[in-house]
Amino acid sequence: MAVRNVIRSIIVETPSKPGNLGKVTTAIGMAGGDIGDVTTIKIGPLSTVRDITVHCESDEQLDDVVEAIKKLESGIFVHAVSDDVLRAHEGGKIHMTSRMDIRSLADLRRVYTPGVANVCRVIQEDPEKARYYTSIGNSVAIITDGTAILGLGNIGPLAGMPVMEGKAALFDRFAGISGIPILLDTSNPDEVVRTVKNIYKGFGGILLEDIGSPHCFEIEERLKEEIPIPVMHDDQHGTAVVTLAAVISACRSAGVTLKEAVVGQIGLGAAGLAICRMFMAYGVREMCGVDRQPAALDRLAGYGGTPLDSLEDLMSRCNIVIATTGVPGLIRPEMICRGQVILALSNPKPEIEPEDALKAGAAFAADGRSVNNVLGFPGIFRGALNARASQITHSMLVAAARAISNCTSHGEIVPHPLDPKVHVEVARAVEQVASQENPKKSKEKVNGSPLK
Amino acid sequence: MAVRNVIRSIIVETPSKPGNLGKVTTAIGMAGGDIGDVTTIKIGPLSTVRDITVHCESDEQLDDVVEAIKKLESGIFVHAVSDDVLRAHEGGKIHMTSRMDIRSLADLRRVYTPGVANVCRVIQEDPEKARYYTSIGNSVAIITDGTAILGLGNIGPLAGMPVMEGKAALFDRFAGISGIPILLDTSNPDEVVRTVKNIYKGFGGILLEDIGSPHCFEIEERLKEEIPIPVMHDDQHGTAVVTLAAVISACRSAGVTLKEAVVGQIGLGAAGLAICRMFMAYGVREMCGVDRQPAALDRLAGYGGTPLDSLEDLMSRCNIVIATTGVPGLIRPEMICRGQVILALSNPKPEIEPEDALKAGAAFAADGRSVNNVLGFPGIFRGALNARASQITHSMLVAAARAISNCTSHGEIVPHPLDPKVHVEVARAVEQVASQENPKKSKEKVNGSPLK
Repeated sequence: MAVRNVIRSIIVETPSKPGNLGKVTTAIGMAGGDIGDVTTIKIGPLSTVRDITVHCESDEQLDDVVEAIKKLESGIFVHAVSDDVLRAHEGGKIHMTSRMDIRSLADLRRVYTPGVANVCRVIQEDPEKARYYTSIGNSVAIITDGTAILGLGNIGPLAGMPVMEGKAALFDRFAGISGIPILLDTSNPDEVVRTVKNIYKGFGGILLEDIGSPHCFEIEERLKEEIPIPVMHDDQHGTAVVTLAAVISACRSAGVTLKEAVVGQIGLGAAGLAICRMFMAYGVREMCGVDRQPAALDRLAGYGGTPLDSLEDLMSRCNIVIATTGVPGLIRPEMICRGQVILALSNPKPEIEPEDALKAGAAFAADGRSVNNVLGFPGIFRGALNARASQITHSMLVAAARAISNCTSHGEIVPHPLDPKVHVEVARAVEQVASQENPKKSKEKVNGSPLK
Repeated sequence: MAVRNVIRSIIVETPSKPGNLGKVTTAIGMAGGDIGDVTTIKIGPLSTVRDITVHCESDEQLDDVVEAIKKLESGIFVHAVSDDVLRAHEGGKIHMTSRMDIRSLADLRRVYTPGVANVCRVIQEDPEKARYYTSIGNSVAIITDGTAILGLGNIGPLAGMPVMEGKAALFDRFAGISGIPILLDTSNPDEVVRTVKNIYKGFGGILLEDIGSPHCFEIEERLKEEIPIPVMHDDQHGTAVVTLAAVISACRSAGVTLKEAVVGQIGLGAAGLAICRMFMAYGVREMCGVDRQPAALDRLAGYGGTPLDSLEDLMSRCNIVIATTGVPGLIRPEMICRGQVILALSNPKPEIEPEDALKAGAAFAADGRSVNNVLGFPGIFRGALNARASQITHSMLVAAARAISNCTSHGEIVPHPLDPKVHVEVARAVEQVASQENPKKSKEKVNGSPLK
C-alpha cells in the first residue's frame, strides 16, 4: 500500500436524491482516492452539501479526483478543496497551561511572590520534594536532532517539530504527562549529551525521538549512564515493545510457543537491533539477525544474538521472522516455510504482502500498519514516573509488551490505540516491575498530609 | 514592612453569634499576624467554621497566632492549620496540554502519522512556516541557572522551579503565551550560551530569569547577538520597565517633568544598571549613579551615565532618586531635598520608609511592594512575538513603560496587575514599535488562506 499523505477535505454539493453520493464516491475511488470520513454539512430540499475527506498518494492524484467529481455534472459541484491537516496544525498542537486560576491578588501571592518563596525553600532543603511541588515529576522532554524524522529522513529539528508536538499531545491525552519538545541544533553525540545533561533537571524523563542511526546508540547509552532519570529512544525501544506485543498476539493466534521459538530479524538498524534485544529479554530460544553492514552484525553478537550470513539461511532457520529493512518485496514467497509467523514491518511497502506470505504457507502474517508506537510510550513513561524509576529497563519494556498483548482482542494483533485501557494497563505493568526492581524508591513516599 | 512569607490557612470554629469573628481577628492581629481572605466554610445554628488566611513573618509568630486564638476559649476552636501555598503547588502549576481532541482514528491520523508528515514537509520547504504550524511562534523559554532566585540567592535551578512555573502560569493567563521552564545545571557563561544556542530553535523567545550578577550581563548580551529571537533578562529589563512606568506616574502626581529631570540610581547591580539604561533610553536630562563597586560605575559610564562619588552628592543633585541596594535605612531623612521623587525599591525593607521621605520634604515616595514585574514581561513578549521581532529593543521597552503608566489610575503609581487591559496595552505598544523598527518582518505575512 502506498503512503496516502495528501489528505484533503472536498466540499461537494449534490442533488438531495438517493444515488448521488454513490456517484461521487465511485468517481473518487475510480480516480484512485481513498475516502475517510464523510460529514453532512447542510441538507436542503434540493441539494445536500458534504465534507468528504480524501486520502491521495500525490497532488496529481488529488487533481484527478477533483476533476473526476467535476465531470459528473448533473447538479454535482465541488465547492472547495481544503487542507484540514494543515488547518488543524495552525498555531501548533500544544500549549503550556496554568493549572491554577489567577483571579485575585491572593491567588497571585500564592502562585508567584511572596508565596512561591516558601515552596522554593522546601525544595532547597529536600530536593526530592521537587517531584511533589513542581511539574517535574510529571514531565518528559521530547528531544530530537531532526536527523530521522518519520520516513522523511534528515529534514532538521525545526521541520520535525510537528512530530514532537504530536507526541506531546498524545502524552497529554493518553497518560496525563506534560511533554516538552526540545529541538537540538546539533547532532554531534558529545554536544547532544552535554546539552541534555545541562537541562535534564527540569524533567522527570527523556524521550529521544527520530534521532538517526548509528549516533542514536551512543547518545542513548551515554545518557542512560550519565543522568539519573528514565531515558528511552522511542524509535528503538518503543517500536520494539509494540513489535513484541504483536508477535506475542500472533503466536497466540498461530499456536506457536514464543519462548521456544527461533526468531529472525532482517535489518539491524536502530529499530531492528532494539527488537532483537527485546526478544532476548523476553527469553526466546535463539535470536538470529542479518544485515548488510558488518558493524550491525557485530552489535547483535555483542548483545548475545546470532548473526547469520544470508537472508535464505535466516528464512529457513527461524519460526518467527521480522523485517524492518525498508526494501519492498525483499522476502520472496518461495522463502517462506510452512507455519512461519511473518511480520514485514517496513512502511509504506512491506518486505512481503501479508496475503502473499499466507498463500506461501505462513501461519500468520502482518505488515507495519498496525504496529503503532502510540501504544507504547505514553504508558511506559507514566509507569516509570509513577514508580519514580531512575531508568527504563528491558524487564519494564517486556512487561509493557505483555500488557499491550493482554489488551488485544482475539483475532487482532494489537489493541485499538484509542482504547484508554491499554495505556492504563501498560502504565500499571511498568510501574509494578519498576517498583520490584527498586523497592526503596517506590516505598519511600513523601508524607502527603498538609505540612504545617 | 517585613516579608510575610509564612502563609497559612487557619480553620476556626466560633459560636454563631455576632462579635466572635472580631475576637478571633483581634487575637490574630495582636499576635502580629496579618489577615488575608476569610472564607466561611459552614454556618450552623450553633457554630460557624471559617478558613482564615494568615500571613506571618516566621513560624514562631504563626505559633503565637494559633496560641492566641486557642486562648480565647468560650466556644472558639482551631481545627487545623494548613499550608495552602504548598498545597496549591502540589503536582506543579503548569501542564503541557494538547490543543486538539484525539477521539477517533481520523484525529490520530491528523495529529500524528501519517498527516503530520505533510506539515513537516511544508516547514522543510519554508522554515518561516514553523511560526504558523507549530507552537514555536507562541512560546517562550523561561531559563534560569538558579543563582539568584528571588531574594533567596543561589539556591540552584531545581529549587527555583516554582518561580519558573509561576512565570509560565502568568504567561499563560495574562498573554496566552506557552512558557517553558528550562533549568540550567551550569552557570558558566560559555556553557549557558552554548546550551541555549543548541535548544533555541524550539522557542519564539527567551526570558532569562533569576540569573545572578555579573554573569547575567555577558549571558544576555551574547545571546542577543548570537540568536535571532527576542531575549530579555527579566530581573534587569522587566524591573526597569515597571520602575520607569512607576516614575512616569509619580512625576505626573508630583508635577515633575521627567525628561528635564536629573535621575539618580543608588545601587548599580543587574536591576539598577538596567534602570539607568531605561531612563537614558527614555531621554532624561542626566542619569547619575553610585555603587561601591568600581566595575559597576565603569559599566554605567560605558552606557553614557554619570558615575558619582558619594550618596550625598547624588541625593543633593538629583530630582528623582531610585534605590535598589538591599540596604534598609540607607537614605537618611536629612538627605532628602524638598520636592524630590523617591523610589526606595529594596524588599523586604526599603532604603527609606515612604512616610519618612514625605515628612522630610519629598514630593512623592514609594517602596518596592508595588513595582511588580508581572506588569511587564507577559505583554512585552506578546508584542514581540506578534511583531515577529528578532530582538527586544530599548524603544520597545520604553513603549511598554508608557503603556503601563497610561493604564495607571490617578493617585496610583502602577495599575492593578490583574487588570487584563494592562497586558493588552503593553503588547499593543510593543508590537507597534517593533513593527516600525522592522517593517519588513511584520508586513511579510504568510498567506492565511487554506493551502491546497
